[in-house]
Amino acid sequence: MRHSIKDIASSLGLQAEGDLDIVVTGIGEPGAATSDQLALAMRPDYAAALGQGQARAAMLWADADWRSYGLKAAILSKRPRYAMSGLSALMDKGQGYDVGVHPTALIDPTAVLGQGISVGAYSIIAAGARIGAGSVIGPQCHVGWDATLGDGALLHSGVRIGARVTIGARFIAQPGAVIGADGFSFVTPEVSGVERARDTLGGTGGEDAQAWARIHSLGAVTLGDDVEVGANTCIDRGSVRDTLVGNGTKFDNLVQIGHNVIIGHDCLICSQVGIAGSTVLGNNVVLGGQTGVSDNIRIGDNVITGGGTKVLSSVPAGRVMLGYPAVKMETHLESYKALRRLPRLMRDFAGLQKRVSKLDETD
Amino acid sequence: MRHSIKDIASSLGLQAEGDLDIVVTGIGEPGAATSDQLALAMRPDYAAALGQGQARAAMLWADADWRSYGLKAAILSKRPRYAMSGLSALMDKGQGYDVGVHPTALIDPTAVLGQGISVGAYSIIAAGARIGAGSVIGPQCHVGWDATLGDGALLHSGVRIGARVTIGARFIAQPGAVIGADGFSFVTPEVSGVERARDTLGGTGGEDAQAWARIHSLGAVTLGDDVEVGANTCIDRGSVRDTLVGNGTKFDNLVQIGHNVIIGHDCLICSQVGIAGSTVLGNNVVLGGQTGVSDNIRIGDNVITGGGTKVLSSVPAGRVMLGYPAVKMETHLESYKALRRLPRLMRDFAGLQKRVSKLDETD
Amino acid sequence: MRHSIKDIASSLGLQAEGDLDIVVTGIGEPGAATSDQLALAMRPDYAAALGQGQARAAMLWADADWRSYGLKAAILSKRPRYAMSGLSALMDKGQGYDVGVHPTALIDPTAVLGQGISVGAYSIIAAGARIGAGSVIGPQCHVGWDATLGDGALLHSGVRIGARVTIGARFIAQPGAVIGADGFSFVTPEVSGVERARDTLGGTGGEDAQAWARIHSLGAVTLGDDVEVGANTCIDRGSVRDTLVGNGTKFDNLVQIGHNVIIGHDCLICSQVGIAGSTVLGNNVVLGGQTGVSDNIRIGDNVITGGGTKVLSSVPAGRVMLGYPAVKMETHLESYKALRRLPRLMRDFAGLQKRVSKLDETD
Repeated sequence: MRHSIKDIASSLGLQAEGDLDIVVTGIGEPGAATSDQLALAMRPDYAAALGQGQARAAMLWADADWRSYGLKAAILSKRPRYAMSGLSALMDKGQGYDVGVHPTALIDPTAVLGQGISVGAYSIIAAGARIGAGSVIGPQCHVGWDATLGDGALLHSGVRIGARVTIGARFIAQPGAVIGADGFSFVTPEVSGVERARDTLGGTGGEDAQAWARIHSLGAVTLGDDVEVGANTCIDRGSVRDTLVGNGTKFDNLVQIGHNVIIGHDCLICSQVGIAGSTVLGNNVVLGGQTGVSDNIRIGDNVITGGGTKVLSSVPAGRVMLGYPAVKMETHLESYKALRRLPRLMRDFAGLQKRVSKLDETD
Repeated sequence: MRHSIKDIASSLGLQAEGDLDIVVTGIGEPGAATSDQLALAMRPDYAAALGQGQARAAMLWADADWRSYGLKAAILSKRPRYAMSGLSALMDKGQGYDVGVHPTALIDPTAVLGQGISVGAYSIIAAGARIGAGSVIGPQCHVGWDATLGDGALLHSGVRIGARVTIGARFIAQPGAVIGADGFSFVTPEVSGVERARDTLGGTGGEDAQAWARIHSLGAVTLGDDVEVGANTCIDRGSVRDTLVGNGTKFDNLVQIGHNVIIGHDCLICSQVGIAGSTVLGNNVVLGGQTGVSDNIRIGDNVITGGGTKVLSSVPAGRVMLGYPAVKMETHLESYKALRRLPRLMRDFAGLQKRVSKLDETD
Repeated sequence: MRHSIKDIASSLGLQAEGDLDIVVTGIGEPGAATSDQLALAMRPDYAAALGQGQARAAMLWADADWRSYGLKAAILSKRPRYAMSGLSALMDKGQGYDVGVHPTALIDPTAVLGQGISVGAYSIIAAGARIGAGSVIGPQCHVGWDATLGDGALLHSGVRIGARVTIGARFIAQPGAVIGADGFSFVTPEVSGVERARDTLGGTGGEDAQAWARIHSLGAVTLGDDVEVGANTCIDRGSVRDTLVGNGTKFDNLVQIGHNVIIGHDCLICSQVGIAGSTVLGNNVVLGGQTGVSDNIRIGDNVITGGGTKVLSSVPAGRVMLGYPAVKMETHLESYKALRRLPRLMRDFAGLQKRVSKLDETD
């Protein structure tokens, strides 16, 4: 993978200066880059380390005085972090999955495969499944009965797509992701302690010892275009209709999406987030790592949660939330500052009580 | 899958009214059901949308005035949510796994298979394993050495059952579930900082730099009858004896059950719950999503935790718990209301101090 | 697996007393051990149950009066918990994976295998991969392109090692672990609501509806020697350089390690912990279950966190932390005690206000 500075800049639509014929074979951190790597120095504090590395060329911010760092060439970007997207795509060597359908791949005769598809060793494409053109199904994957993948899908090893799941174009699934397991939905013959606790917001768990009857998930999962799903992440089937995810939404690793959930477009769902059944998220929502969202609530457009936030009730559009239970970030910071000062307040209060008692006596 | 209203009602033991010969092929939401779907309208507020859909028949609550919604037939249930269990079982098309033992399935000659078993492609049944009659082992599963599955098991794709694990009848495992990985148990040659911090409830992490020695898990896992385990959920082996789970207990996705844990019957363990080593749960316990339970404690029968609860000490039977650290739900709600009013209290307190100081001076 | 008391004691370097020729075939709990099992009674309160079991021999603490429990032989240890490490290794029957390379294992001709390697059924070793001598690759694993495993690795079933991942000696990976999935790194063309919320610590999520562009992970993962990774745990690739883990660090199940993270040696990372991108951990750090650690912060050597701790900012070496947000354990305990007394304080405060008002009037 050899690219000249000129070609990289041109492919990213960016300005380049200096010796544009320098060829690089990869990317490196400022202090560790070799002479055939392009160093990434997005900000002046990163660039300071360029002297310790061997890079002859670097990508820097728009008005960087790149020559002062001893560089021979530079690519300049107003938003280097965004430029990193195109640059990293250009430089990615990928996983090197075999091209074509591996002889051990089991493809049901009723499955429909688009043009130019690769299917890895020991992968299974079940009856009625449809795989869009140009898709790469990695090794040891399972694409279930009547499932549909759009064009340009990339499934890494061991991905599992359940029956009747429908996925749009350019889907990416990291290893071990499970789309379309059954929802977690059980019911007791009579009203259960959980139902009572929810109604009364407290009380005690019932003394009843009822067995749980299973509600089967008759719906599937529908994901839009440009969705990415992280390693070992799970998106469950719906009970009656499909669980739904809009275009451009990305899920990190080990995320749980419950049955019937509806998620809008262009959301970012970080690692270990859990969204309980039937909850609805708007568009452009960003949930920080380990956020939990209760069932049957609504999260408005553009909502952002900090890491570890537990959202127990609906949130209006545009809010930035933090804490358990989740509140507006400002409210949370104020409460916690106060909590930290509370032990002193209690001592001061006791003191004040004594003073008042004395006044009472004097009085 | 075609069922008359009459047959559905009779199979569920429910009353039906109207044109019982109407045939449905599936289930739909009130506002979206087609004319050959049975609409589900469990409550009057759901039923209001029936006019927007095409359903001719619906399942409704016991005394519903179903004709007023323009329906031709109705199935009536005192507890429609419970009826949904039988109905959804009737309507479930399932995953369509192949019937019989796939030619690529590797079954050790010493494994014992009951009658009428299916084993999917690229699945492995190890030496000495026993699979009960009527079980369906999906594709790409691994059932380990001397493991036992009861009758009627259903393993979805990629499930992993470790050596010597024993599982009762009618087990269901969602894709990627791991039963019988090694417990997480390590020990240092000398007392470690963690042991000291536990003893002193604080202090500082030690300066010692000891390596961790592994304690192997000699126990396995024993699950009762009618247990279900969610996608990518992990139940670890015990150290000396087996980790134990009672009959009828259900686990959602991405749950972690540590070594030596004992869980009673008919518990509901929601997604992303973690139960640390050697903890004991009673019967009919319900743990909300992302609940964490410390090691070596006891959770009584019928305990319920809200989502995100972190249980750091034992809980008596029947309690409804919330918060971090977990307290009774009422206590939690009261504390958090107070916390929210705390910043104002602090301002008011400062005001009162001034007033008292003035009184002091006057005095 | 038959061992005499003499041989066990000698192999563990411990003192044994009584009839050293007694042979045991396994290990049991004091109250449940059979006559051919060695009972484990680490402390006097455990030993009390020995009378209910059939054990003739036990492992006990250093100065135990073992004859008083009716035993015929005893192995004595100053730190029985540490002795359990060697003992359990001796007694472990393991998973019984096939020896040698299974005929269905697919090994690329360019892969380099050390001496005495086993590769399980339906496992795949990709081009350029290197596996150290004596390694056991379980069934249905995938070792990616140019990945390297040191000597003595043990991969349980369904483990996935991504391209260019480098792992040291004696690696253990539980089922379903994923080393080297892509990092979760996305960027918008213009500054996003998340970036703004971080800068202002609050405000509102932006109204902008930008799509997320993917930053590819060009780095891989490098793990040191003696690392263990739990079931379905995920360690992501770095963006430019590798994600790094030092020697002797152990990860429990369902852990998430984000891109670019650096972890020192001999850390213990418990189940369901999440460490966000680019964070740096020192050595001998112990993170309790469900701990979350924010991105781009530093956790010093010997830091310990309690279960459920959410670490939102850097932590100096040696601290024991608890809570959300994480604070020193003592501070947390003090704050929460105060919080529990806060509702009463509020009532007392209202009372005091009245008293002062009366004094004001009298005055």
